[in-house]
Amino acid sequence: MSENEMKLSKMAGKQSILFSNPPCILSAASIAGKKEGEGPMGAQFDIIQEDPLLGKNSWEEAESELIKQAASKVLEKAGLKSADIRYLVGGDLLGQLIATSFGIADLEIPTIGIYGACSTMGEAMSVGAMLVDGGFAEKVLAITSSHFAGAEKQFRFPLDYGNQRPYSASWTVTGSGAVIIQDHNKYQKSNPEEVTIVIKGVTIGKIVDYGLKDSMNMGACMAPAAYETIKQNFEDFGVQPSYYDRIITGDLGYVGKNILIDLLKEKNYDISNNHMDCGIEIFDKDSQDTHAGGSGCGCSAIIFASYILKQLREKVWKRVLFIPTGALLSQVSFNEGKSVPGIAHAVIVEAE
Amino acid sequence: MSENEMKLSKMAGKQSILFSNPPCILSAASIAGKKEGEGPMGAQFDIIQEDPLLGKNSWEEAESELIKQAASKVLEKAGLKSADIRYLVGGDLLGQLIATSFGIADLEIPTIGIYGACSTMGEAMSVGAMLVDGGFAEKVLAITSSHFAGAEKQFRFPLDYGNQRPYSASWTVTGSGAVIIQDHNKYQKSNPEEVTIVIKGVTIGKIVDYGLKDSMNMGACMAPAAYETIKQNFEDFGVQPSYYDRIITGDLGYVGKNILIDLLKEKNYDISNNHMDCGIEIFDKDSQDTHAGGSGCGCSAIIFASYILKQLREKVWKRVLFIPTGALLSQVSFNEGKSVPGIAHAVIVEAE
Repeated sequence: MSENEMKLSKMAGKQSILFSNPPCILSAASIAGKKEGEGPMGAQFDIIQEDPLLGKNSWEEAESELIKQAASKVLEKAGLKSADIRYLVGGDLLGQLIATSFGIADLEIPTIGIYGACSTMGEAMSVGAMLVDGGFAEKVLAITSSHFAGAEKQFRFPLDYGNQRPYSASWTVTGSGAVIIQDHNKYQKSNPEEVTIVIKGVTIGKIVDYGLKDSMNMGACMAPAAYETIKQNFEDFGVQPSYYDRIITGDLGYVGKNILIDLLKEKNYDISNNHMDCGIEIFDKDSQDTHAGGSGCGCSAIIFASYILKQLREKVWKRVLFIPTGALLSQVSFNEGKSVPGIAHAVIVEAE
Repeated sequence: MSENEMKLSKMAGKQSILFSNPPCILSAASIAGKKEGEGPMGAQFDIIQEDPLLGKNSWEEAESELIKQAASKVLEKAGLKSADIRYLVGGDLLGQLIATSFGIADLEIPTIGIYGACSTMGEAMSVGAMLVDGGFAEKVLAITSSHFAGAEKQFRFPLDYGNQRPYSASWTVTGSGAVIIQDHNKYQKSNPEEVTIVIKGVTIGKIVDYGLKDSMNMGACMAPAAYETIKQNFEDFGVQPSYYDRIITGDLGYVGKNILIDLLKEKNYDISNNHMDCGIEIFDKDSQDTHAGGSGCGCSAIIFASYILKQLREKVWKRVLFIPTGALLSQVSFNEGKSVPGIAHAVIVEAE
């Protein structure tokens, strides 16, 4: 096979990539807020920050501090310095990605800023894995964050306004998750039994707009995008839902989860037995008053960087389809009466 | 050489990539506003829109229409449908990239949303070329936009406020530029004499913060980032300024240009003879009252997609270093008294 044919064979179906040399996840870090620490996943996170301001003067600075700590932690866990990372791929929910740019500037890593709303971790891991598999980097840092108070101020109302939240509303997670993606050929197992986690492939999502306009019901806005990406993943790789031990969406919450399962059932795909949603898992709905569930870039990122990777490392699951989901609204588009389109990027993660 | 060694050899120096199979630029399109059409580059653009609202109800919708028209035009010029494009890489200046997401949703192309402020065209072309050279796509659409009125509203004051502008302020360009990047092996020349334009390599920039805080003097904020990226490009490829026929920055304007040239001179690099800045070229300073020059993602994008490519196709220039420059501020970071960090990504474009 010529070099060109070899390269072309990475393209799977219409929207997906099957890596020729699947990059591995060298380390991961999760920094969570107090409420997230009190939830069912609390014990999984590396660091829990009790102070929502993290000692800073604004919510935005607090979020930058979250992302800075996640970057430090993921480097520390891998025994690396920032100079060992060739490229950083990351972003957040704030306008012009200020949480990320102020959080990571000191690291001095060449940076590819991305925006996919709450799908950002899926986008960061997809682009990061492509950079590594394409031979453009040996190590890439994929990172994202969100902050409850910063997101409410950005998209809805400042907390001081005391706005009431409908039951369809989700609760933006305060947290930052990071992973280092590395060339598999450069990976040294610490012992022969060590389980390696690899990114086998990705499915890049389209913007999907069913015309919904309710920024207090983002699960419903994002479910169609998750549906399109998951269906395309099944088609591009010629697999059924049972191919995956878990199909894990980002932050559809209770409302979006049901819509997703129903949409896929109409196409004869039943994911009800192996679907999980990070937004549902992160909070206890009854005791934590979080309504439809958790959301925000940080939601799927910290669950992936902790619980999901742990289940894979322990081989409870061997193959996971991870699909962070994003709602592409801004306060301006919402105030101008526009719809809330969604996007979702899927990453196939395997234990081997 | 093994596959792995071949792949690793794409990494040039600390931050750069030298493509093993340099992707080519299949087609390009530029849509400009009225003021841009009246400037010295007016005759170069594909379409000039006289109506700043483009028949829409808001500045944001107008910008989405600009980006939609640029996408249509670049597809039309290449004789392609949107389904022929595997991935779209793009973004804009508005919070949460709403100009892009509402502008391109109808195309139904899998999308990688990016943000690099006014460096976005450099980032889009860099990521796009990596996706093609990495074997992940045969054709990628790289696109960006900006709109004067939308940007003033987003970053400074709504036009109706009648704010005065200092001489160091730049004028955000109304326009959208797009290029289709294609696998070179799949490129068919229309005739043997046709000049092919290839992306030879890229240098991904770091976030550079010299502590400047003036959002009305973005040239000064961005010049250090341009300096760091250009210097790194010279070092990574072991070349001198004369290696390039033109070194073309995005939107430093008159203030930033002088700072850039001075900073490089301190390192014994003299680019004063072959430097050009899109922000300086796009407007006539005296007759158009644009103070420090043009800026915005659209500025370097439409100049690249028209004039720069034309000079390369006619072999007036054979090798260009194109460095769109971005200022990483938001209205929130500015109001909270933060500095304005910069970022710049460099793309080596050659005629062959």
